[in-house]
Amino acid sequence: MHASDHSPAAQLPGRAAFPHRHLTGIAGLQPHEIVFLLDEAEQWVEVNRSRAKSDKRLEGLTQINAFFENSTRTLLSFEIAGKRLGADVVNMHAAQSSVKKGETLIDTAVTLNAMRADVIVIRHMSSGAVDLIAQKVDCPVLNAGDGWHEHPTQALLDALTIRRRRGSVAGQRVVICGDILHSRVARSNMLALTALAAEVRVVAPSTLMPAAIERMYVQPFTDFDAALEGADVVMMLRVQNERMAGGYIPSTREFHMRYGLTPERLARARPDALVMHPGPMNRGVEIESSVADHPTRSAITEQVEMGVAVRMACLDVLTRAERGVEGWA
Amino acid sequence: MHASDHSPAAQLPGRAAFPHRHLTGIAGLQPHEIVFLLDEAEQWVEVNRSRAKSDKRLEGLTQINAFFENSTRTLLSFEIAGKRLGADVVNMHAAQSSVKKGETLIDTAVTLNAMRADVIVIRHMSSGAVDLIAQKVDCPVLNAGDGWHEHPTQALLDALTIRRRRGSVAGQRVVICGDILHSRVARSNMLALTALAAEVRVVAPSTLMPAAIERMYVQPFTDFDAALEGADVVMMLRVQNERMAGGYIPSTREFHMRYGLTPERLARARPDALVMHPGPMNRGVEIESSVADHPTRSAITEQVEMGVAVRMACLDVLTRAERGVEGWA
Amino acid sequence: MHASDHSPAAQLPGRAAFPHRHLTGIAGLQPHEIVFLLDEAEQWVEVNRSRAKSDKRLEGLTQINAFFENSTRTLLSFEIAGKRLGADVVNMHAAQSSVKKGETLIDTAVTLNAMRADVIVIRHMSSGAVDLIAQKVDCPVLNAGDGWHEHPTQALLDALTIRRRRGSVAGQRVVICGDILHSRVARSNMLALTALAAEVRVVAPSTLMPAAIERMYVQPFTDFDAALEGADVVMMLRVQNERMAGGYIPSTREFHMRYGLTPERLARARPDALVMHPGPMNRGVEIESSVADHPTRSAITEQVEMGVAVRMACLDVLTRAERGVEGWA
Repeated sequence: MHASDHSPAAQLPGRAAFPHRHLTGIAGLQPHEIVFLLDEAEQWVEVNRSRAKSDKRLEGLTQINAFFENSTRTLLSFEIAGKRLGADVVNMHAAQSSVKKGETLIDTAVTLNAMRADVIVIRHMSSGAVDLIAQKVDCPVLNAGDGWHEHPTQALLDALTIRRRRGSVAGQRVVICGDILHSRVARSNMLALTALAAEVRVVAPSTLMPAAIERMYVQPFTDFDAALEGADVVMMLRVQNERMAGGYIPSTREFHMRYGLTPERLARARPDALVMHPGPMNRGVEIESSVADHPTRSAITEQVEMGVAVRMACLDVLTRAERGVEGWA
Repeated sequence: MHASDHSPAAQLPGRAAFPHRHLTGIAGLQPHEIVFLLDEAEQWVEVNRSRAKSDKRLEGLTQINAFFENSTRTLLSFEIAGKRLGADVVNMHAAQSSVKKGETLIDTAVTLNAMRADVIVIRHMSSGAVDLIAQKVDCPVLNAGDGWHEHPTQALLDALTIRRRRGSVAGQRVVICGDILHSRVARSNMLALTALAAEVRVVAPSTLMPAAIERMYVQPFTDFDAALEGADVVMMLRVQNERMAGGYIPSTREFHMRYGLTPERLARARPDALVMHPGPMNRGVEIESSVADHPTRSAITEQVEMGVAVRMACLDVLTRAERGVEGWA
Repeated sequence: MHASDHSPAAQLPGRAAFPHRHLTGIAGLQPHEIVFLLDEAEQWVEVNRSRAKSDKRLEGLTQINAFFENSTRTLLSFEIAGKRLGADVVNMHAAQSSVKKGETLIDTAVTLNAMRADVIVIRHMSSGAVDLIAQKVDCPVLNAGDGWHEHPTQALLDALTIRRRRGSVAGQRVVICGDILHSRVARSNMLALTALAAEVRVVAPSTLMPAAIERMYVQPFTDFDAALEGADVVMMLRVQNERMAGGYIPSTREFHMRYGLTPERLARARPDALVMHPGPMNRGVEIESSVADHPTRSAITEQVEMGVAVRMACLDVLTRAERGVEGWA
């Protein structure tokens, strides 16, 4: 068992521990609420590792995964999480369907609601789309990534990975490197990690750094080497050409030169610094294979494992009111 | 509970209440058989609304949704319906697969049959494809829309919506407006609503009106305003450019001018007239938002809800012989 | 009940009956191990035919179907097989996703493994991809077809079909006709059928015949008519233009002339010779409809049925260690 960073969380009874109907982002969550979700996820890590039969607590509930943007891994993770808990999981591959126009987004939300979904997981290319849908439905909504906005379960699984591997998130120097401007992963991580009292440094070329980055309570760097000094955790972002407007981004080769994580560069961090990546990796671009596959320092595989556990926790917690769990009505 | 239009239906025992092996269309159904399906669907409305655990009566049965034509909503509705009843639901996205040629349709049917499907739900771009498949398999087949032919569950959910909102289908003046010629929704609705003794008016430009429309026991109109006089229900069809051959259809703007449902136009109908649309809507084309979203008159969301209930009823009723339910062998 | 060709197999207890962790191919399997899988499949044939509730022995296990190459039928068969056994089945349509590059294949394998899959079914366009993945994961891997290499469940279902229809595989003269060079179906069948002591003849134009075909213990023919003399089973391969490099293959019409199975040609085989095809068929190319649909001689539909049973057997047997079945740890 891992001691949680904020022990009082465990004592809060029922709904008071997590008084939110939806999980649209990390923004708006109290630190102890984040810790509560991490603590809940821990139990599912054990269940999954022991391949024990889970208790099918979501049996009879309909979980709709409405993915307006393709994502093999995240969809797979949410689908496995829901099925392990016994939910009837239905995927809506909206990216391939006729519902591509923003104008019909609300109609789609109303339709899913009318089908009596019990929880809706949404991924959408537009920031704020998930919030919009959450306002239109009678069931909990879970954000699986919306535009440049947030990807809260990614931040939760990253925080859980750090907490398990480093004992605590608080006080850790975490360096996040890549396209900070367009990355919902970076944004949700900045929110979650600073809430849990990590020291967060973000690294990007100036064209890919948000203007008011200081408001996020993080330290901006353009020099990766400087940022890496004394780092406990190095979190690389995926280079996503599809998100970056033309002209902003240096060439792949130049990017690797300045912002790729190499063994030499990693040597600037603490000797036991953790290496993280949300996947899928562009090997040889933002990260070199010898770093990505490092037997003791890479936590990339563990991140994937934590992803399923975190999503099980979120699905369970958000549907407790629906299911009439005592103290959650 | 809603009184059914034809009360004797409830008394017929077992198979006599619905003696059909397949549901390939509304054509061929007796009025009391339609009422029987609507009565069966009512119970599922209640189950779904109460989010009660359904009784998983289809557990162990394999439901194959063979969709040769994409349809996000209808597929979702059938998938949720089957899973709520406990079936093992498997989707065959034939539209994306190699089985695109009409010549292999029978081979596909024989293949699904050999895999021991217990019920097959089919959507196909060719009229009659579902009948053809029904002849080749040993299990019940459910038509989820075939070409310009029929879409029987859509008509059933529309009839159920009208019955619930208006108390009865019989005697209601229902105006169906749009591309009557190519619409399987219109065709199935004409059959179902006239069977249930509604007064049906159909509205279309003359190029989109079937030649022998009188044989359907409906009144044809080219003037939408004239048709709307005294209407109890206004059912708008989706403008589907993909179904209309070039040259037939006026421009979108002209279509809206003559056949779009506006608040002004709706004022010609009865003050409490119901507004319906099978979705997804082209807002601003066949229907204006203020009408589509009218808090008391629009039944569009309820149609979606009735869709799941009707499909649960059809899946249940059609598989009773398979499942050895007493009186249904 | 069908007597197995190698009766001692039934006596081997537990893991000794099938000591393999994965099923990546027929190569490496002992004849009695093949027979063991066929015997196991027999019971599922009966279960499926009686539409009996299967015993859900895979309940709580996660089966991931990772299909890097589209295949409607094979995916459907594996999905139905897994769901009938109670597994949580999750499809990863990798062919449509971003994981298309060979370089990330291992990353994908590691990801699926980290999600705690209990069995992974893989189809991939590259020979050897399945072996590579099997080395990287902690759970059993099942090959659903990899490049030109193997398609073991196809060979097992073919062997089971022959055994049921002809009483035994041993001693049967089986003629396999088509693109032997690029066909994983042919390759797995050559391995399985010769292991079970069939006399195997392979027929192809010389450009589509492997160089060292004699090493497979089969007799090569370029003349289909000559090969058919005295045949007990005629197995036609699907003409797959997508697998054949330009220049190799004669025109479709010429192919049909020389290698298409016609009633006249079939008359050269034994009067009760069995006709087989893995599907989907190109009617009029490699096989004529009057042959494919022959009421007593065609076993093509039965092959599909055996496919589900064989896959249920493989999924069950391979996960016995995972599930702690006595004698299989």
